[in-house]
Amino acid sequence: MNLAKVVGTVVATQKEASLEGLKFLILQKVDLDGTPAGGSLVAVDAVDAGVGEIVLFATGSSGRQTVRTDKRPCDAVVMAIVDSWEVAGEVKYKKGTDD
Amino acid sequence: MNLAKVVGTVVATQKEASLEGLKFLILQKVDLDGTPAGGSLVAVDAVDAGVGEIVLFATGSSGRQTVRTDKRPCDAVVMAIVDSWEVAGEVKYKKGTDD
Amino acid sequence: MNLAKVVGTVVATQKEASLEGLKFLILQKVDLDGTPAGGSLVAVDAVDAGVGEIVLFATGSSGRQTVRTDKRPCDAVVMAIVDSWEVAGEVKYKKGTDD
Amino acid sequence: MNLAKVVGTVVATQKEASLEGLKFLILQKVDLDGTPAGGSLVAVDAVDAGVGEIVLFATGSSGRQTVRTDKRPCDAVVMAIVDSWEVAGEVKYKKGTDD
Amino acid sequence: MNLAKVVGTVVATQKEASLEGLKFLILQKVDLDGTPAGGSLVAVDAVDAGVGEIVLFATGSSGRQTVRTDKRPCDAVVMAIVDSWEVAGEVKYKKGTDD
Repeated sequence: MNLAKVVGTVVATQKEASLEGLKFLILQKVDLDGTPAGGSLVAVDAVDAGVGEIVLFATGSSGRQTVRTDKRPCDAVVMAIVDSWEVAGEVKYKKGTDD
Repeated sequence: MNLAKVVGTVVATQKEASLEGLKFLILQKVDLDGTPAGGSLVAVDAVDAGVGEIVLFATGSSGRQTVRTDKRPCDAVVMAIVDSWEVAGEVKYKKGTDD
Repeated sequence: MNLAKVVGTVVATQKEASLEGLKFLILQKVDLDGTPAGGSLVAVDAVDAGVGEIVLFATGSSGRQTVRTDKRPCDAVVMAIVDSWEVAGEVKYKKGTDD
Repeated sequence: MNLAKVVGTVVATQKEASLEGLKFLILQKVDLDGTPAGGSLVAVDAVDAGVGEIVLFATGSSGRQTVRTDKRPCDAVVMAIVDSWEVAGEVKYKKGTDD
Repeated sequence: MNLAKVVGTVVATQKEASLEGLKFLILQKVDLDGTPAGGSLVAVDAVDAGVGEIVLFATGSSGRQTVRTDKRPCDAVVMAIVDSWEVAGEVKYKKGTDD
């Protein structure tokens, strides 16, 4: 999994039928300081994440191991909203504080 | 998933039998401004996408989770045609407008 | 999938038993002009491709979705021999013409 | 698999239900000298690894082949704690010695 | 698949139970001239490869398609020991000759 910030959304009407009703989020990867780094991707939302939130996403076949994405042509899923993380005992990110 | 522009097609007569009838599209990846960035690949079309359209594609085993690609040796599929996307509340792409 | 040129072969006698009889091809990836670009890899041949031919290959679990590679420890397969491709309406490669 | 050092942890309350009770570790990849190199990722802990330990992690669908991660949306798992490794007959890392 | 040289081994006592008895090899990738290039990784040995040998390895779920690695959290496997390879009709590597 990797850390990312939800920065946007994609609208696509004409799509594989099994994708109906899913929400496509644009993710900007962030490094361990929470700074944007490493490119963007599109992931399906499994946890009602909103724009601006820091999330964890899983890729590949693991992107289909959620109730919403099972058996869908989906190779990336937001499967958790991050509360906080720490590195070497130091809190590097905490939701709700300025970052 | 990632955003890409359909830029071409590949013809291949001699191929694994299960691929018969599928259409191979050449995709040029685009960044969040819709600008070509990050290389090209070949994907099977699951949604009747045409050259010039902006699409979403899925890779890996997720590339086989469509009606057309199920159980085929296909590691990338166009599974949606993009209408629009926005980043930080700003529309970055809208189909049918100059871009 | 990606475009590549078959540039060689690998011989390996001591191997997992299920790989017996398969042919290992060395592939040099090519860009949309047919020019070598992006490194090489080894793939199993599913379509009787020969050295010098331009092919499509699939990777990951999709590399096992052919009759020859099913359930084998094979993560890349040549699943089509390319006749031609075009980009933006221009033919960039056609088999049998000088390139 | 790759070698990495466990450098931190991630807390995420709102997540796919199947992830309940799993521990998310932040891994910093290391090279064959044990030096940080090559970026970080988040992996689920399958072996009670602690911060500061050198571990092996597996990615992709192989990240789900442990008792704790089976069928979860998890694309990376710590599946072993490293005691030592050697390259060309020389011990490059041994747990419990200064490194 | 890719070509690599076996350069070392990893010892890990505390690990997922299904990995008991498997041998972890450190692989240094090599290019088509047999020269080290492109980083290292850890793979499970399926064919009794020894340090110093040139091998083929498969990654991802294909890393689990051997008798020894089936259903294990293993994302890379050495599935063949290379005897020789040639590129454009020229032998680039032959086991047992100086290289």
